[in-house]
Amino acid sequence: MDTSNIIDSRLINPHAIAIFGPSLKPNTVGNRLMNNIEKINPEVKVYCVNPKYDEVKGFPCYPSGLDIPDKIDVAVIAVPKDSVENSIRECIQKKVPYVILVSAGFAETGNEGLELQNKILKLCKENGIRVLGPNTLGVYNVKNNIPIIFTPIVREINSSIGLTTQGGAAGSMALLSATGEGVGIARLITTGNQIDINTLDIAEMYIEDDEIQIIASYMEAIPDGQKLKELGLRALEKQKPFIIYKSGRSEAGQKAAMSHTASLASSHTGFTLIAEKYGLTKVDSLDEMEDALKAFNARKRPKGNRVATLVVSGTQGVTNADHLVEAGLELAVLSDETRRKLREFVPSYLSIDNPVDISTHRDIFINCVEILEEAEEVDALFLQFNWSTEMGGDRYAQALVETYNRTSKPIIVITTGGEEFTGHIRKYLNENRIPSYNNVLSAVKSLYHLYNYEKRYSTRKQSPVTLKAPSMENKLPVSSDKSVTEPKVKDLLSQFDIPIPRGGVGKTLDEIFQIASGLTFPLVAKVVSPEIMHKSDVGGIVLPIENLEELKNAYETITQSVSRHSPSSKIEGYLIEELAQGPFLETIVGVKRDPLFGPIIMCGLGGIYVELLKDYSQRVAPITEEEALEMIKELKSFPLFNGYRGGSNYDVQALAELLSNISKLALTLGDDWSELEINPLIVLEKGKGVLALDGLITMSKSEYETVVSK
Amino acid sequence: MDTSNIIDSRLINPHAIAIFGPSLKPNTVGNRLMNNIEKINPEVKVYCVNPKYDEVKGFPCYPSGLDIPDKIDVAVIAVPKDSVENSIRECIQKKVPYVILVSAGFAETGNEGLELQNKILKLCKENGIRVLGPNTLGVYNVKNNIPIIFTPIVREINSSIGLTTQGGAAGSMALLSATGEGVGIARLITTGNQIDINTLDIAEMYIEDDEIQIIASYMEAIPDGQKLKELGLRALEKQKPFIIYKSGRSEAGQKAAMSHTASLASSHTGFTLIAEKYGLTKVDSLDEMEDALKAFNARKRPKGNRVATLVVSGTQGVTNADHLVEAGLELAVLSDETRRKLREFVPSYLSIDNPVDISTHRDIFINCVEILEEAEEVDALFLQFNWSTEMGGDRYAQALVETYNRTSKPIIVITTGGEEFTGHIRKYLNENRIPSYNNVLSAVKSLYHLYNYEKRYSTRKQSPVTLKAPSMENKLPVSSDKSVTEPKVKDLLSQFDIPIPRGGVGKTLDEIFQIASGLTFPLVAKVVSPEIMHKSDVGGIVLPIENLEELKNAYETITQSVSRHSPSSKIEGYLIEELAQGPFLETIVGVKRDPLFGPIIMCGLGGIYVELLKDYSQRVAPITEEEALEMIKELKSFPLFNGYRGGSNYDVQALAELLSNISKLALTLGDDWSELEINPLIVLEKGKGVLALDGLITMSKSEYETVVSK
Repeated sequence: MDTSNIIDSRLINPHAIAIFGPSLKPNTVGNRLMNNIEKINPEVKVYCVNPKYDEVKGFPCYPSGLDIPDKIDVAVIAVPKDSVENSIRECIQKKVPYVILVSAGFAETGNEGLELQNKILKLCKENGIRVLGPNTLGVYNVKNNIPIIFTPIVREINSSIGLTTQGGAAGSMALLSATGEGVGIARLITTGNQIDINTLDIAEMYIEDDEIQIIASYMEAIPDGQKLKELGLRALEKQKPFIIYKSGRSEAGQKAAMSHTASLASSHTGFTLIAEKYGLTKVDSLDEMEDALKAFNARKRPKGNRVATLVVSGTQGVTNADHLVEAGLELAVLSDETRRKLREFVPSYLSIDNPVDISTHRDIFINCVEILEEAEEVDALFLQFNWSTEMGGDRYAQALVETYNRTSKPIIVITTGGEEFTGHIRKYLNENRIPSYNNVLSAVKSLYHLYNYEKRYSTRKQSPVTLKAPSMENKLPVSSDKSVTEPKVKDLLSQFDIPIPRGGVGKTLDEIFQIASGLTFPLVAKVVSPEIMHKSDVGGIVLPIENLEELKNAYETITQSVSRHSPSSKIEGYLIEELAQGPFLETIVGVKRDPLFGPIIMCGLGGIYVELLKDYSQRVAPITEEEALEMIKELKSFPLFNGYRGGSNYDVQALAELLSNISKLALTLGDDWSELEINPLIVLEKGKGVLALDGLITMSKSEYETVVSK
Repeated sequence: MDTSNIIDSRLINPHAIAIFGPSLKPNTVGNRLMNNIEKINPEVKVYCVNPKYDEVKGFPCYPSGLDIPDKIDVAVIAVPKDSVENSIRECIQKKVPYVILVSAGFAETGNEGLELQNKILKLCKENGIRVLGPNTLGVYNVKNNIPIIFTPIVREINSSIGLTTQGGAAGSMALLSATGEGVGIARLITTGNQIDINTLDIAEMYIEDDEIQIIASYMEAIPDGQKLKELGLRALEKQKPFIIYKSGRSEAGQKAAMSHTASLASSHTGFTLIAEKYGLTKVDSLDEMEDALKAFNARKRPKGNRVATLVVSGTQGVTNADHLVEAGLELAVLSDETRRKLREFVPSYLSIDNPVDISTHRDIFINCVEILEEAEEVDALFLQFNWSTEMGGDRYAQALVETYNRTSKPIIVITTGGEEFTGHIRKYLNENRIPSYNNVLSAVKSLYHLYNYEKRYSTRKQSPVTLKAPSMENKLPVSSDKSVTEPKVKDLLSQFDIPIPRGGVGKTLDEIFQIASGLTFPLVAKVVSPEIMHKSDVGGIVLPIENLEELKNAYETITQSVSRHSPSSKIEGYLIEELAQGPFLETIVGVKRDPLFGPIIMCGLGGIYVELLKDYSQRVAPITEEEALEMIKELKSFPLFNGYRGGSNYDVQALAELLSNISKLALTLGDDWSELEINPLIVLEKGKGVLALDGLITMSKSEYETVVSK
C-alpha cells in the first residue's frame, strides 16, 4: 500500500504552530482560539502572525509568516477571507505541511466563496500543503495537551481513543461526554467541509498511531468506498476496533446532511454490508458510539457470548436475562463446580442459576465475581448494583478494580440508584477501564459490540477477505438507452464458468435450423436486439418448441410480433437454446453497482419471494464461495433447497460457486452500468449444477447516482 | 362492572396505621421501617405494637394490637414469622382492612413457609382482610408524604404518576430515577409475591384515583388476562395512559422470573396483541418506562406525527432527522408562511427547512419556538441544545417554560453537553413539565409513545372494541388424545356463517351414493374418525372423484388404507363433498387458545408462507371485520389478493367476515382445546366468497400451559 500520502504525526504533535489572524477582540474567531492556545503544552512553540501586535497572550507575533524564525508544522488561518490567499502563499514559502482553515466566507456563503475555496485548494495541492476544513473545529491532541481547537479544554484521561467527526458538534459532544464519563478521548479532529483532509484520512493516521488503539468516526458522507474497505481490513489486522456512526440513513437525514456539510448521499445498505464484511463496528447514534467506546476502551474482549450476570435484586436478574438474550448473547450455563463454589457464599434462598442474585449481601460480592471470573464456561461478566457511598459502593468498586486488573475477562457494570448516589462510582470504574453504564440496554449493546468484534476478528483471521479485483476488463456499450444483448451477457457469463443452456444465435431460418441440428428438443427461441430489454413484452420469446416445424413457426411469429410491437428495434438474430428440464428451483441473482462501494450481489428465490416477501440476501463483491453459502443460508426460503416437505435437494454448492463467479465478473465491467441480472437462474438437483436461462445488463446510471447528481 | 372489590383509598391515604413489630435494634426490618415512619405526615396517626416498648420514635407503643385506641386502616406486620398469625388475629378483631406483610419466612424459604403463607392468606380472606406482600417494599404515598415503605424517602415533585411494580427493586429504582430527573412519582406500591393484592389491583385503584393521571407498572407475570383487557379499556376511557413493562420475554428471563417471584410464564405475543388492542403502552425496559413517564407526565399530546426539530448544529439536524423518521414520526413540511417568519430571524446561510438550525444564535431561540408552535403543519416540537448556565442556558430554559405554559403543543427537549453543564437545566425543564432527555433515542421513542397513544385513543373512540363474548357455549369432547372430527368442526363453522363445501357424511356405500346424487361432480371423499388427526397420512382422502364408479373405488380405497395404516381407528363415516373450483387463493386461518388472554386469531397464505416465511398476522379475539381487514392488509403477501401480476382479485371482504366470525366461535369453546385450524381456507374471486375445505380442533392443552405446569 502507498503510505506516502498518509497524514503524519506533525498535524497532531507539531513542533511549532503558527496562528494567522489571532485577535485580542473578544468573540472573534482569532480570540476564541487564542484562549485555548494560551493553555497549550509549553513544549509546542507558538507563533502569531498579525501586523497589529508584537505579542499575543505571551506568544511572539510577526507582521508576516515569513518573519517566523522557525519551521512550522501546522498553520491556523483565521484571517479575513480576502487575506487567506496571502497567508497561504506565506505558508507555501515556509513549506508548512498542514493548514487548518478556520476563516469564514467559503462555499457556505455562495458562489463567490466557492470560487475562492477552489482557488485556495488548488494552490495548496500544487504546493503539497494538506488542508483541514473549512468549517472545522480544529485539531485537539488531548493526551499531550495541544488544543488547536474551538471546543472547551478538557482534563486528560488515560484513553487510547482517536475520534474524528465530520460535524463539529458531534466531536465536541462526544469529547465532553466521554470526559464526563471517565472514558476520555486521546485525540479529536473534526473535518468540517473536508475539501482536502477527510475523516478517512484521519482514521488512516490513527491506524498508524501507536498511542491510538480504538478509532471512532462520525460521518455524514463516506469519502471513499474503496479506502473504507482498505482501512477496515488494516484496522482489523492491527486489532484496532474502528467504530463508525454514519448519519443520513433516512431520506430526511440525507436532505439535512446535504444542506449541512454538502455531503453526498450514500447507500445505507452498501455501508452496512461493508461494515459487516470488513470488520467495522457500525453504530446508529452518537450515544451508541459513546457507549461502545466505553466498552472497547477497556481493552478486554470476550472469547464467546456466554455471559454470567450477578445482580442485587430479582428484578435485575429477570430483566438482564431478557436484555442479554435479546441482544444476541447467551446466559452461561454454570457448571456444578461453579455452583458449588458460589453456594459457599450465597444463601440457599437466593438463585445461583445465572442470574446470580446476592440481594443485600454486599460482603460476598467480590467472592462471587472471582468465582465467575475463574469459571471456564463464562466469557464475560455483567454486574448490576446500586450501592451508594453510604452503602460501601466506593469500597466495593475499588475491590472490583483490583480483581479486574489481575484477571482477563471483560466485566461490564450497570450502576443504578440515581446519578447523585452512584454516578461517581460509575465514572471511577470507567476511569479504571471497567465499562460502566446507568442504562441496561446501552450496556448490553456495548457488550454485544465487543463480542461481535472478536467474532469477526477471528473469522477474518481464518478466512481473510480479498480486495483484489480481477485485472481484466470487459468493455460494455456506453449508451444508456441500450442494453447488452442476452447472447453477449451469456458470453460474459461463460467466461466466468457460469453454465448457460446449449444453443446459438442464427440470423436466417437456415442458420437456425443448422443450430437446432446440434441440439435436443424441446427448444426455446428468443429475439436478439439491443433495443429490446423485455423480450416477452414484444412477443420475442416462443417456447416450448418440439420439432423443426414448430421452430419455423416460432421464427416467423417472433419476426412479425417484434416488428408489430417494436417496429424501430433492429433484430440482430434469434437465440435458439435447449429448454431446461426439471425438477429445478427458480432463483434470481442480481448485481447492483453502488457508485461508492462497487457491485452488490443479491440472491433469492424467483417469483414473489424477492419482490413481495423481500426474502433475499446481499454482499459486496468480491465474495468467496463460503460467503456465498452464508448468503444462501440466510434466506428464509432456504429449506426449499433441502428436500422441504418431500421436495428435491437442489445444488446449493453450484449456486454458491455461481455467486462467487458473478461477483468477480461484476468487478470487470467498469463504471457505466447499473444492474446485472440473471433471471431466472435455475438450480437443478444436487450434483446437476445451475443454468442461467436469461441475463441482462442495464447501462443507465444507477438510481442512486441520479439522486446524488440532482 | 363490579367495583366492590377495588382497593380503596385507605391503603394509600390511611387515617391511622399500626406497626406490628417495630424495633430499636439497627438493621432489623422493624427498625428500618421506623426510620421512614418517623418522617411521616403528622396527620397520619401511627401506633406501634411491641410488648417491649412504651413508645418508638415518639409514637405510642402497645403490648397488643387490641390495645390501640383507634380505628386502623393499614397494619404493617414485621414480627417474627411465628407471631404473624397472632398479629393477624388481632387485625381481624380490630377490623383492619389492609395488611402489609413484611415479615420474612414465607414461601421463599420452602414448604413449611409456604404452608404458613397459605394459612395466613386463608385467614385473611375469610375475614375480608386484603394482604399486600410478602416480599413487598410497601406503600409510598409520595404526594402526601406517607412512606410505609423500605425505599429512601424522596422529595415530593408535582407528579400525577401512579407506579406499581411486582419486583421491589424496579419500584425503588424508578422512584429514585424519576425523582432525580425532576419527574417524580405520586404513589408507589410494590406487590412482591402478590399472594392477594397484585399489580392489576393497584392499577385499578389508580384508575379510580383522581390524583393519578398516568399509571405505570412493572410485571413479571400478568395476574389476570381478562382483567388486563378491562383495565386497558377503562384507562383509555378515562384518558389515563397505562404503561406496562412486562419482563420474562425470553426463556432465560422466564426462568429467572419463576425463581424470583414464582411468576407464571405468559405469552409475549399475547401480551403484545393485548397492548395494541386495548390501548396499553408497552415498553421493553425500565429505562424506556422512565423515559415514557417523563413524556406522559407533561400532559400534552400531539394530534399527529408531524414533528418540527430545532437544533443548534448541523450534526444534530441530520441525526435527529434520521432518528425521528426511523421511529415512525415525520418531519413536518414547513409552509411558505412559516418559513418566511423563520427567515426574519434565522440568517440566510442556516437551514429553515426542518431541521431548523439556529447554530450559535441563541437570542432567536424563543422566537423560532413560537413560530413553530403556531404553525398548523406542526404537531410537536423537538428541540436540542447544549447551553450551560454560562451560555445563558437557565435563562433560555425559563423562557421556554413560559412559552410552553401558554401554548398547547408538546415540546420535547434534548440537552447535550454533559451532565455537569446542562443536567440541572434538563431537570428544571422536567419539573416544569417539558420532557427533557440527554439521549436522543430516548426522546424520540417517548415522543412516539405519546403519538401512538393519541392515535389509539382516537381510533378506539371511533371504533370501540368489545369485550363481550357470545353467551352460547359449544361442548367439545374433553379427551386430549382425540380430535374433533371434520364434520363436527364444519357444523360449528356453519353455525357461525362460515361457508363450507356442499356435502354430507354417509356410513354405507348406499348412503354415500344417496349424498352424491344431490351434488355435482367432481367430488372428494374423506374418512371421518376422531382418532385420525391427519387424514392424508393414512390414505384417508381421495380426490378428484369424477363419477359414481370412482366414488365406489374411493370408498373401498379409504376403508382398506385406513384399516391398514391405522387399524385401531374407528371409522365413523365418509365425508363426501363437492370439490372446489378455481381460481382461488389458499389461506390458513388458525386460532390458538392462550390460557391467559384467550383465543388468538392468525391468518396467512397457505403453503410455505406461514411456516417458512412467517408471513402471518395475529389478533386477540373477538375481532371486528375492520380489525380483520387490517390483519389481512398487514400480510406481506397481501398484493396477491389484488390482481398481482395479472392475477385475479380475491374476496378479501369475505375473508375478513370469516375471521371475525371465527373469533366469535372460538370464544364459545371453553378451555379444553388448544388449537382450531381451517386449512386450507380458500378465498375465491371477488364476490364469490370463501370456503373452509377442512377444519380441525385439537383438544390437548396448549404447549404453553405444559411449559408452565412443569
